[in-house]
Amino acid sequence: MVNETQHTCSASSSSKSDGGSSSGSESSKDSSRCSTPVLDADRHERLREKMRRRQDSGDKWFSLEFFPPRTANAAVNLISRFDRMGAGGPLFIDVTWHPAGDPGSDKETSSMIIANTAVNYCGLETILHMTCCHQTKDDITGHLQKAKRLGLKNIMALRGDPVGEEWEEEVDGFNYAVDLVKHIRNEFDDYFDICVAGYPKGHPEADSYEADLRHLKEKVVAGADFIITQLFFRSETFLKFMKDCQAIGITCPIIPGIFPIQGYHSLRQLVKLSKLEVPQEIKDVIEPIKDNDAAIRNYGVELAVSMCRELLDSGMVHGLHFYTLNREVATTEVLKRLGMWNEDPRRPLPWAVSAHPKRRVEDVRPIFWASRPKSYIYRTQEWDDFPNGRWGNSSSPAFGELKDYYLFYLKSKSPREELLKMWGEELTGEESVFEVFTCYITGEPNKNGHKVTCMPWNDDPLATETNLLKEQLEKVNRRGILTINSQPNINGKPSTDPIVGWGPSGGYVFQKAYLEFFTSSEIVTALLKVLKKYELRVNYHIVNVKGQNITNAPDLQPNAVTWGIFPGREIIQPTVVDPVSFLSWKDEAFALWIEQWAKLYEEESPSRMIIQYIHDNYYLVNLVDNDFPLENCLWQVVDDTFELLN
Amino acid sequence: MVNETQHTCSASSSSKSDGGSSSGSESSKDSSRCSTPVLDADRHERLREKMRRRQDSGDKWFSLEFFPPRTANAAVNLISRFDRMGAGGPLFIDVTWHPAGDPGSDKETSSMIIANTAVNYCGLETILHMTCCHQTKDDITGHLQKAKRLGLKNIMALRGDPVGEEWEEEVDGFNYAVDLVKHIRNEFDDYFDICVAGYPKGHPEADSYEADLRHLKEKVVAGADFIITQLFFRSETFLKFMKDCQAIGITCPIIPGIFPIQGYHSLRQLVKLSKLEVPQEIKDVIEPIKDNDAAIRNYGVELAVSMCRELLDSGMVHGLHFYTLNREVATTEVLKRLGMWNEDPRRPLPWAVSAHPKRRVEDVRPIFWASRPKSYIYRTQEWDDFPNGRWGNSSSPAFGELKDYYLFYLKSKSPREELLKMWGEELTGEESVFEVFTCYITGEPNKNGHKVTCMPWNDDPLATETNLLKEQLEKVNRRGILTINSQPNINGKPSTDPIVGWGPSGGYVFQKAYLEFFTSSEIVTALLKVLKKYELRVNYHIVNVKGQNITNAPDLQPNAVTWGIFPGREIIQPTVVDPVSFLSWKDEAFALWIEQWAKLYEEESPSRMIIQYIHDNYYLVNLVDNDFPLENCLWQVVDDTFELLN
Repeated sequence: MVNETQHTCSASSSSKSDGGSSSGSESSKDSSRCSTPVLDADRHERLREKMRRRQDSGDKWFSLEFFPPRTANAAVNLISRFDRMGAGGPLFIDVTWHPAGDPGSDKETSSMIIANTAVNYCGLETILHMTCCHQTKDDITGHLQKAKRLGLKNIMALRGDPVGEEWEEEVDGFNYAVDLVKHIRNEFDDYFDICVAGYPKGHPEADSYEADLRHLKEKVVAGADFIITQLFFRSETFLKFMKDCQAIGITCPIIPGIFPIQGYHSLRQLVKLSKLEVPQEIKDVIEPIKDNDAAIRNYGVELAVSMCRELLDSGMVHGLHFYTLNREVATTEVLKRLGMWNEDPRRPLPWAVSAHPKRRVEDVRPIFWASRPKSYIYRTQEWDDFPNGRWGNSSSPAFGELKDYYLFYLKSKSPREELLKMWGEELTGEESVFEVFTCYITGEPNKNGHKVTCMPWNDDPLATETNLLKEQLEKVNRRGILTINSQPNINGKPSTDPIVGWGPSGGYVFQKAYLEFFTSSEIVTALLKVLKKYELRVNYHIVNVKGQNITNAPDLQPNAVTWGIFPGREIIQPTVVDPVSFLSWKDEAFALWIEQWAKLYEEESPSRMIIQYIHDNYYLVNLVDNDFPLENCLWQVVDDTFELLN
Repeated sequence: MVNETQHTCSASSSSKSDGGSSSGSESSKDSSRCSTPVLDADRHERLREKMRRRQDSGDKWFSLEFFPPRTANAAVNLISRFDRMGAGGPLFIDVTWHPAGDPGSDKETSSMIIANTAVNYCGLETILHMTCCHQTKDDITGHLQKAKRLGLKNIMALRGDPVGEEWEEEVDGFNYAVDLVKHIRNEFDDYFDICVAGYPKGHPEADSYEADLRHLKEKVVAGADFIITQLFFRSETFLKFMKDCQAIGITCPIIPGIFPIQGYHSLRQLVKLSKLEVPQEIKDVIEPIKDNDAAIRNYGVELAVSMCRELLDSGMVHGLHFYTLNREVATTEVLKRLGMWNEDPRRPLPWAVSAHPKRRVEDVRPIFWASRPKSYIYRTQEWDDFPNGRWGNSSSPAFGELKDYYLFYLKSKSPREELLKMWGEELTGEESVFEVFTCYITGEPNKNGHKVTCMPWNDDPLATETNLLKEQLEKVNRRGILTINSQPNINGKPSTDPIVGWGPSGGYVFQKAYLEFFTSSEIVTALLKVLKKYELRVNYHIVNVKGQNITNAPDLQPNAVTWGIFPGREIIQPTVVDPVSFLSWKDEAFALWIEQWAKLYEEESPSRMIIQYIHDNYYLVNLVDNDFPLENCLWQVVDDTFELLN
């Protein structure tokens, strides 16, 4: 009897009962044990494995295609679109190769750098397109090497479009996508997952539909892992194509490319490029409303939703690929109507994980960068490895300096005029700075009627979790305790809690209360007297811009402030207050006063002098209440401090 | 104002407020960060640093001297005495060098092996004595190298006694302890802490008291770190000696050697050897009661207590060294009356830490060896390092096989006849085995009137913590669920809790409920059906002697079952259920049926066949209830299983 239910240690059929958010055994094949617990198999799997697992579990997915922006400002916007659309849970995004835009360069608008940003700074599984015509083998190898170095793991191998009207053979290069697939497999072995394009109606330049199918099979045989199709207008087109592919022995995943019609002109342009014919029944609807963008978009959404439903209902389609045209509304709407947009994403860890392969075991970060994760990734990008889920064994973490505030993925989303409206055209004293902080916390408009939706230390409105502390935060900011980071204490809430939960279901999460703020030396003096009473219950680190450092931490050990307990897992402690890292954060936190705020004003202007004064004289303070099962005592500490000052 | 209270990050004056059980900054000097949190500075400090820290904090300490045993049985007893007296909290123990007993050999009675056992298996800071006369330099270097290899860190450098009546100069060796001190420093640099002997009345062979003081100073100048004195009978003798030492510039710690008089004959022998004179007032008391051992011991305790009080009250003495003569009662009594015996020792971790330097970062162990820590240390002795507080990064832990059940530090404390009385002279069936398990749990005598105070898997009576589960354990053992390891769930009790607490004060400890038992395949079959209902709430591993392995663990990751949260620290998770280690433990757990139990009976005897049957057919099961904040469901699992069988 026992033998009937028996399975060995490494088998993991039972893991499926976990609901898909944890488990999976792929990661355990290479080594019997990881240094850090695997919470999220996704982080360890290749894209093709993720696809297979989602297909096996019947869990439908979607992906999103973007093209590189034309200007640096557009790049800033695209990156924040990645963050917003990433929240809906795409399996991957892809970035097209834009031959005219120097696609392999280090420009902030290049395909390479946009894909790099998506992977490393937005944590998105990303496919970089690459075309092969009009380029030498060496150029292409160089691009692929660079992509690998940046942590990109997936390539969409394409031929590219002819320069003139007619196709001309390249002598010392590649002429077909299949050549590029072979080249990638020859030069990089199995490192990249390779995607190729399929044409449900046949490639316009192909001799015939059948000939094109044979070309597609050649690409798969050469090493492609899956296929994404050109757009089409009827589900039958795709389903027939898929059956025809299967008939000639193509067994890899074939993902339909969905194009929600978003406007008259974009449709016309796309049709021209793709040489596709728009079905008459669609033309009949669109022509009469061609000047009504909203009506066309509504129709496009409707059309896409019904076509996607047909595809999904066929049982042959497991994932949908969306041509977004870099726009959010239509695609998001389609996905929401299909029930595929992940409204309440389960966070694998309390912070956004990066998708670079070398960071896939990363599972601890200092809390200081909670609102500036991209800056943290930037400053730790040179770290070779995360053997313990973070910096090396017993050496001091070498943070890169942050001087590059101008980098597009670190810039504020708001332009200078917006910032001035929020933070004040003219400051009259420290109190006007207190007022800005207070308005940011409360969400109330400032005296000029503008809401403060971001701060130099936080480019987004207040986090839901921080909202739990809103009342107290308002009170203390008004009096000059200028908070930039905080979390409430949590004593064992379910890991599925919508506000503070993270990690797989069935677990419990915990937090120590944390408060970080700038304040004057007068308040620090009183605070230190008050803190004496609390002894080791409250750990503090207080530092000014010159690096004068006051702490009661017994040594340089990190203090875990967020941790989780999960079934069958070691303890996960993703967030720490780390005394050594605090000194690196301090440089950044103080510099943001100048870089983001003071520089809005004329040199020597009173407003600028006020910010400069705060920068030069205030202290940065962090407080941890170690007694997490009791009521958070940090508000009492602050109250006692004000009491003492009165 | 702020600057007045300022201290830098690495300063740790605040750490003293922690009450001494944690903190201390010595360990942070070499590296800014350890891979594992430092809970207990003691484990990282050298003996001389521990002495200094205790002196600075005014925390009085004691140490205990033992001599090597003459027989293997006596060695077993001495090791369990180390465990019992170690619980009182000595700063160190020392083991004398017994030239006649082949002291540097691998014999289980040698000084070297006894000291090795104290360090590695009992976790005691240990000084090994070493004499230098009648030995070549090479011999001595060999002994020192061996001591270092075994993890010994402290040497008491002595000359040794002459073979005949008169001292003869050694040509190719050492003639004085100072030569040995110099040799150790020359050959081993600063590796060892070195102790030397002081004679409060002057060495009997010295030309004068003053000449002997000069010799002592030479030993200190040559590199000795501290001094332990010969015994003496009056506190004035020691205090005068100490002042005389200080007067000639000896500044290292001088520890008085205390000899509680325990009997007439041992006193006479010691006096003969040491050539000391017993003061008349002591003789006057002892002579009349010389045949009354109890009376002499009472007097000896009284005398020692009052002398120790005088020494401590002088303010010059910070530690007391006891000549135990390998006996427990008198020394323990003196220490208890002085209030220096640590009645409720704070455990730095839930398991006894080993004092070998390479294990000082060890902070995770599998729960399976909870009752057999010496076996765990033995089987992991070849591990080179504990970079993550345990086995290496991502490789499978290579446990040594346990074939050496005869090793004296792994043997049962009870002789064969005792074991037969407890476990049954004759077994009549599996039920008589159930009965033995049940009696062990309840503490009730078996049907022949003998209490079962140990089991093959546990050489000690039931742990206090296990007592919390006594009622349920009794019930299930009666029905053939033969428990060998268990712990209750704990949801955040203070780290100072007398039963389940561990680590520094101010923390909280947690546990997942755990149950491990042998049981029949019939019960396993029912159990597996029941476990389906519990899904991932209960993780199980079920294995038989042949290695058939049934589990619902999603992969080979360890499950943390004990963890602690402390002020200013990362999370500590000292105990895990580790699927890979379980298979190594399984071999040991099954073998104990045969090695410790079956072999008590004649080959082919019915009793032996019964144990052999259980060994061949039963399963070893472990269960973890992951939902630690809820009521332990493992008893319900077992009840449901019995229900199903009915």
